[in-house]
Amino acid sequence: MILLLGSTGYVGNRMLQYLKSQGVEVYGLSRNQIDYTTRGGLKQALSEYRPEFLVNAAGYTGKPNVDAAELDKANCLLGNAILPGLMREECEAAGIPWGHVSSGCIFSGRRQDGQGFTEEDAPNFSFRQNNCSFYSGTKALGEEAIGYRESSDGTKWVHESQPSGYVWRLRIPFDHLDSPRNFLTKLMRYDRLLVAENSISNLDDFIYGCWATWEKRVPFGIYNVTNPGHIDTRQVVDMIQASKLGQLLASSGKHFSFFENEDEFMLKAAKTPRSNTVLNSSKLASAGISLRPVEKAIEEALQNWVPEHS
Amino acid sequence: MILLLGSTGYVGNRMLQYLKSQGVEVYGLSRNQIDYTTRGGLKQALSEYRPEFLVNAAGYTGKPNVDAAELDKANCLLGNAILPGLMREECEAAGIPWGHVSSGCIFSGRRQDGQGFTEEDAPNFSFRQNNCSFYSGTKALGEEAIGYRESSDGTKWVHESQPSGYVWRLRIPFDHLDSPRNFLTKLMRYDRLLVAENSISNLDDFIYGCWATWEKRVPFGIYNVTNPGHIDTRQVVDMIQASKLGQLLASSGKHFSFFENEDEFMLKAAKTPRSNTVLNSSKLASAGISLRPVEKAIEEALQNWVPEHS
Repeated sequence: MILLLGSTGYVGNRMLQYLKSQGVEVYGLSRNQIDYTTRGGLKQALSEYRPEFLVNAAGYTGKPNVDAAELDKANCLLGNAILPGLMREECEAAGIPWGHVSSGCIFSGRRQDGQGFTEEDAPNFSFRQNNCSFYSGTKALGEEAIGYRESSDGTKWVHESQPSGYVWRLRIPFDHLDSPRNFLTKLMRYDRLLVAENSISNLDDFIYGCWATWEKRVPFGIYNVTNPGHIDTRQVVDMIQASKLGQLLASSGKHFSFFENEDEFMLKAAKTPRSNTVLNSSKLASAGISLRPVEKAIEEALQNWVPEHS
Repeated sequence: MILLLGSTGYVGNRMLQYLKSQGVEVYGLSRNQIDYTTRGGLKQALSEYRPEFLVNAAGYTGKPNVDAAELDKANCLLGNAILPGLMREECEAAGIPWGHVSSGCIFSGRRQDGQGFTEEDAPNFSFRQNNCSFYSGTKALGEEAIGYRESSDGTKWVHESQPSGYVWRLRIPFDHLDSPRNFLTKLMRYDRLLVAENSISNLDDFIYGCWATWEKRVPFGIYNVTNPGHIDTRQVVDMIQASKLGQLLASSGKHFSFFENEDEFMLKAAKTPRSNTVLNSSKLASAGISLRPVEKAIEEALQNWVPEHS
């Protein structure tokens, strides 16, 4: 049996549906039943349910965006830094392997050599770089609590011993279902957009990729679970405009406009810096788990678009 | 009534004894009764006991030293970063003022102008500077969770709104009672010592100073509660050697030896960097709360020394 934490969240709920559709016996534990964010609660949950594998899709995301986390620091630290640490410790003590939904938002830009960041690169958007949102800082601390740390020269991200589970890094989820959490929805609803290039994750592809690491028993460790490639905001907007959906939007008078640059965005729209980054997803592909290229995943989401209140 | 968290710890227990000796009605809450490190537990404690003031002397300190915290990150984050944040939020919601035992270990060295760090200076030994132990990192995050943050130029430590309680910074506690937590005991028991200058806190003076901020109702905010001045390891060793205690130690064959420098110390004795720093304690003095100069406090501790197993 699979025990799932965070099953009411955007990612966790999709994971729950997917596992059920695959005939996997899964139980979505609610915090009202057992507060699994405490060590005692988590210990109790593991001994009561004795899962074969634990999925942690719980975490703190600011609503409507990461700016909110700046004003809710204790909850943000609890969900993103403490819980992964407790999970790792209690699962190891109980001999239960696990998968943790982490985030690519602990990186910014590209590597110095122009390539996307791999799983071996140390986060460069973190408290330790002092350049990040409180949210990104707690996410990087969460990977530290799981046992990763900077190498002594600060460039590599190494595990203090041997990983005992999977760290699945999600980036800017999107899919064909209109929703305030969907990247495509955000692009359509925001007044003005920041132009930036990113690796991003189709939510269904992400769920598929995560589960496949455990199904195939690929080696434990970190996996960037993003659609291969990267894309910038203008390209996505072009794709939206070229779609049927774009024609509907245009006929309703929608006009896409952009901030001049990141400075203007920070000045007018944001309280805390955003992560925009390119990730290398080839480790996942090398493990035999292929996701659609990012352009194809966006195209298909737009083709199959389901409006929120339809 | 005063509610005291952490009353079995080195600092909290002394606080409990002091308040009782002053005829203050105080209750030392144990985590076995109510787990006050969870939001629900803390809320329950505040509504059951309805204290006039809350003292948080709970926190995570690595045993025997901060190296241990590197291997116990979730607990360290919980005790030092989450708990202060929960305390601030729940006390504000309940309208209860509070005092939190923080630490001067979020600083290193002296200010660029050669002076000790004041309460207005941003921590320079923290995750954000990426130069610290995990312990110091969590202590600085604890002050962030309480509402402090770096000014935009990174030099000042400002509150996001108005402080609703006291942040009392302790540094390297010592007193006349021989104990593994006592700085003087450590100097006598360690094989080799690192020479470094520090502002330090006599434990009784610290407790007196903390309580006086509330008794006198001085303005809420941060206070460096250290004995005025600073002292280096060799000076303290000289004072030990010149005392009656030093004569006893010498006759038992004790020889004090020192590491060449911090590099040798890090290589041979430590897993993670230590904070050594000079703090400016004049804000407390200006509030009318005077502690003994550091030399006098050490001298009197040595004169009144009580061996651990006496």
